[in-house]
Amino acid sequence: MLTNVEHIGIAVRDIAASNELFAKLLNIQPYKSEAVESEGVTTSFFRVNQTKIELLEATNPDSPIARFLEKKGEGIHHVAFEVENIEAEMERLKAEGFTLLNEVPKRGADNKLVCFLHPKATNGVLIELCQEIKE
Amino acid sequence: MLTNVEHIGIAVRDIAASNELFAKLLNIQPYKSEAVESEGVTTSFFRVNQTKIELLEATNPDSPIARFLEKKGEGIHHVAFEVENIEAEMERLKAEGFTLLNEVPKRGADNKLVCFLHPKATNGVLIELCQEIKE
Repeated sequence: MLTNVEHIGIAVRDIAASNELFAKLLNIQPYKSEAVESEGVTTSFFRVNQTKIELLEATNPDSPIARFLEKKGEGIHHVAFEVENIEAEMERLKAEGFTLLNEVPKRGADNKLVCFLHPKATNGVLIELCQEIKE
Repeated sequence: MLTNVEHIGIAVRDIAASNELFAKLLNIQPYKSEAVESEGVTTSFFRVNQTKIELLEATNPDSPIARFLEKKGEGIHHVAFEVENIEAEMERLKAEGFTLLNEVPKRGADNKLVCFLHPKATNGVLIELCQEIKE
């Protein structure tokens, strides 16, 4: 089950400037900033009801976000859906013909296990599954 | 106040095929289909918790969705935020320097009054404000 739109990821060139912009837009402040070295990004998060807005700035020129910005410019990069059991959901979606970009859940921002689906099989939408890590 | 991510709008070429695709992805069926003649689109809606996924197919070649598909291909077209008082929010955002694409709220899909913000001032993200019409 995809139980919630957990967050919407937006690729930006200058996260400090975008933090100010989205603070004006949403009329709230970001509640968290976090670097994810494995993905080559700095992130910041705004909370709107049960969905987060995640801003993503590239920290190295080979990161997926840097390549996205180069190819498409700033804009929505992905939509993340919350799942209760990421491995079961990955199995189900693979059986339905979707293409997983990672075969094993990996650690993402915000204390999550994540898996991405290839946008070629989802009408051009990069979709992330994410499951909260409970320790 | 932007109180909720009301929906995410996704531009698709063939809404019948995309209904099947998103039904597989989300493991639910669309609950509504609606034509919006003024926008030149046919839409369908899936509900995931408090956020809807809205698929949009162009019904005429001059519609904004047809132009988007031609320029960028399939993918996320806009993000809509629920507001309690659309006119007050339009005033607030205009004063903050955002550019409204319509100066007066217009009637959108799903029984809503809507206003779009120009993506040039919002990091490339087309943002919709929407307020439920209560009769």
